[in-house]
Amino acid sequence: MKEKTRRPKRTASEEEESMQRTLTDVRGFRAWGAYSGVKSKRRDIALIYSEVPASAAALFTQNVVVAEPIKLSRRHIRSGRAQAFVINAGNANACTGEQGRRGAEAMADATAEALGIDREVVLVASTGIIGRTFPTENVVNGIKTCALKLSELRLAGTLAANAILTTDTFAKESFSTTRIGGKRVHMGGIAKGSGMIHPEMATMLAFIVSDVAISRELLDEALREAVDDSFNMITVDGDTSTNDMVAVMCNGLAGNEQIREKGLIYDTFRAELKSHCTELARQIVSDGEGATKLIQYDVEGAPDRNAARKIARTVSNSNLVKTAIFGRDPNWGRIVAAAGRAGIRYDPDKVDLYIGTSKTLIKLLENGQPLDVQRRKLKSLMRAAYIYVLLDLHQGEARATAWGADFSYEYVRINAEYST
Amino acid sequence: MKEKTRRPKRTASEEEESMQRTLTDVRGFRAWGAYSGVKSKRRDIALIYSEVPASAAALFTQNVVVAEPIKLSRRHIRSGRAQAFVINAGNANACTGEQGRRGAEAMADATAEALGIDREVVLVASTGIIGRTFPTENVVNGIKTCALKLSELRLAGTLAANAILTTDTFAKESFSTTRIGGKRVHMGGIAKGSGMIHPEMATMLAFIVSDVAISRELLDEALREAVDDSFNMITVDGDTSTNDMVAVMCNGLAGNEQIREKGLIYDTFRAELKSHCTELARQIVSDGEGATKLIQYDVEGAPDRNAARKIARTVSNSNLVKTAIFGRDPNWGRIVAAAGRAGIRYDPDKVDLYIGTSKTLIKLLENGQPLDVQRRKLKSLMRAAYIYVLLDLHQGEARATAWGADFSYEYVRINAEYST
Repeated sequence: MKEKTRRPKRTASEEEESMQRTLTDVRGFRAWGAYSGVKSKRRDIALIYSEVPASAAALFTQNVVVAEPIKLSRRHIRSGRAQAFVINAGNANACTGEQGRRGAEAMADATAEALGIDREVVLVASTGIIGRTFPTENVVNGIKTCALKLSELRLAGTLAANAILTTDTFAKESFSTTRIGGKRVHMGGIAKGSGMIHPEMATMLAFIVSDVAISRELLDEALREAVDDSFNMITVDGDTSTNDMVAVMCNGLAGNEQIREKGLIYDTFRAELKSHCTELARQIVSDGEGATKLIQYDVEGAPDRNAARKIARTVSNSNLVKTAIFGRDPNWGRIVAAAGRAGIRYDPDKVDLYIGTSKTLIKLLENGQPLDVQRRKLKSLMRAAYIYVLLDLHQGEARATAWGADFSYEYVRINAEYST
Repeated sequence: MKEKTRRPKRTASEEEESMQRTLTDVRGFRAWGAYSGVKSKRRDIALIYSEVPASAAALFTQNVVVAEPIKLSRRHIRSGRAQAFVINAGNANACTGEQGRRGAEAMADATAEALGIDREVVLVASTGIIGRTFPTENVVNGIKTCALKLSELRLAGTLAANAILTTDTFAKESFSTTRIGGKRVHMGGIAKGSGMIHPEMATMLAFIVSDVAISRELLDEALREAVDDSFNMITVDGDTSTNDMVAVMCNGLAGNEQIREKGLIYDTFRAELKSHCTELARQIVSDGEGATKLIQYDVEGAPDRNAARKIARTVSNSNLVKTAIFGRDPNWGRIVAAAGRAGIRYDPDKVDLYIGTSKTLIKLLENGQPLDVQRRKLKSLMRAAYIYVLLDLHQGEARATAWGADFSYEYVRINAEYST
């Protein structure tokens, strides 16, 4: 039970090598994060550039109300190729009409011109306040600055990671090296999180790059699967903001034979991609507004995958469960009641429930009935920063994992004061 | 636009007559609320009794995990007849297994014996903590006390209303008189609310009685319709606790010819029943944990009723909208983003949005684009205790109304401290 909660194991040398590295340590990728002046005193414009054209894939918000950069990027990604990601923070460019549409186009044009590439290989993203006039001039100037400074510093990727933040309190980054098809392959990512990573989440953005060579079709499939088990398990189906976007570029400079079909080599790549998505998703949850704890919800023994996913997400999304865990209260009643309203038919009298930490899980419920437990020990476990909840339905073989934050006073303060 | 937000008009004399009256002012109904000792220093057991057998209908939680009293009452209501409602607070009798099952049976048995009626005409409900051993002896003794004291005081209905509360801060009651089929008909109700009236709401209970004569089939249909437009519009589909229940008894003592078919007379009754359900639902929302404001969400111009309902509920249920309104921030961006993720396809570029009070609604958005508004005036309107949000989709004729509370620091405090 504990193994599955650990991150993928790496050798000591690989672990050491991956320290302090950012996405600009992936061959052929350069980045920068600059000040455009939209946010006072913070970097607010990021550029990620591949020196050669790359296979690319991207997934977008399911919201009916869609920001202008999303509309543009949806068109550009159809080719399955990209060479640059450009992202501004501070203005979401949503509900901005024709002025906003021109602003998004200007971002792509400025990026293409500064880098000497086609505008169609530029993907554009925005995050920030909705419905404010888009500050096109500032943003375009910021893009020019980024293009001039690309990778001037060792930690340019970290500057980019910082430049896409809004209410986040830290930059989210991932990096790894692995062997794929006999070649050393690098992968790096950045992400930004959002209000509580909740149904009503603010924008979630993630950008991942790799020097692996892979066909656009398989890259698209691998990304969909990875996002489904990571970013989609920190939100609820369809509950996305106007600006959500996850995008990946793979430029092939690792020199492996291009991955064109499924098999062991593809499996290694997709595991790596999923690992990055999971890592970034967890970092986002850890930085949920006002979050004091990260909670992992494992559902096992479900009749099918959909049932496991729905139950895991419904429980992880329960305000009453979140507030209980903030209060260090192992309130299994709220967990069971939340699972029961997930819209899945199951027999509650077969369910076992465990709560604890990565080291110790305590069984609270067996066959749907509460067990006598040492409340003092349990209370003390609940002080941990990473809490595990395991529901075993004993009604099948399917499983799913979701992640959530707890729910503190700070959440209300942030969201009552952060204004349009 | 303003009329639809008003309660049904009554004449001055009717208004005066309905003051200070409770459900024991409905002919043939008696009630009491007693101390069983389960909750310290608060009444925690309620009994509502009809002196003659009554037509009855009830609706129950959709949760997979169902409390023992719900299982029992589901069986008993199949006959369409009832003569008593008995409700205990402090222990939900959920996840209590065989011991709990016997406890619920004991409640029905004790009520039947004390009142000299069949156990099958007793409906049982519970609210409180889940998974604790059910205190059958206390509850049974409390029932005996209730039966002895039935309607000893003028405000016995209010004692019953108080005895079903948990984290509520005030008792919820409704009363009206109206003419149906040439006779004066009385109707009275009590309800209890719950944690934020949210997807993860704690138990919601409502009990309504009337002296009207109506067939059980039409009563059932009227109740389903009334609940759909009231209690179901303060929650999200299927998102019910283990214990939710709404029940109604009509004992026919008003002397009207029994309503057996649809028509004007039935319409008068169902409007009256819906008015009570709406009034009780609004009171529940007003007492949402930590609520400082009641918000009414009207969606108009929707392509169909389901679309209007889903959008109204999704917006009313948004944590980001709730916290914004707590912060007196007319944050239309969050409202539009929440509407967009309701799972309904619509054209966001046709939508108008208004925010304000019953007296003044200010248009913030036209055809999906923000308008210039006087922010100072708007901010000042947001100080009101009853806020109106109107979304006009301009894409059809359907409409729906949902109600919600705002979201304050107090909500987190209550739910982090109220323990299993």
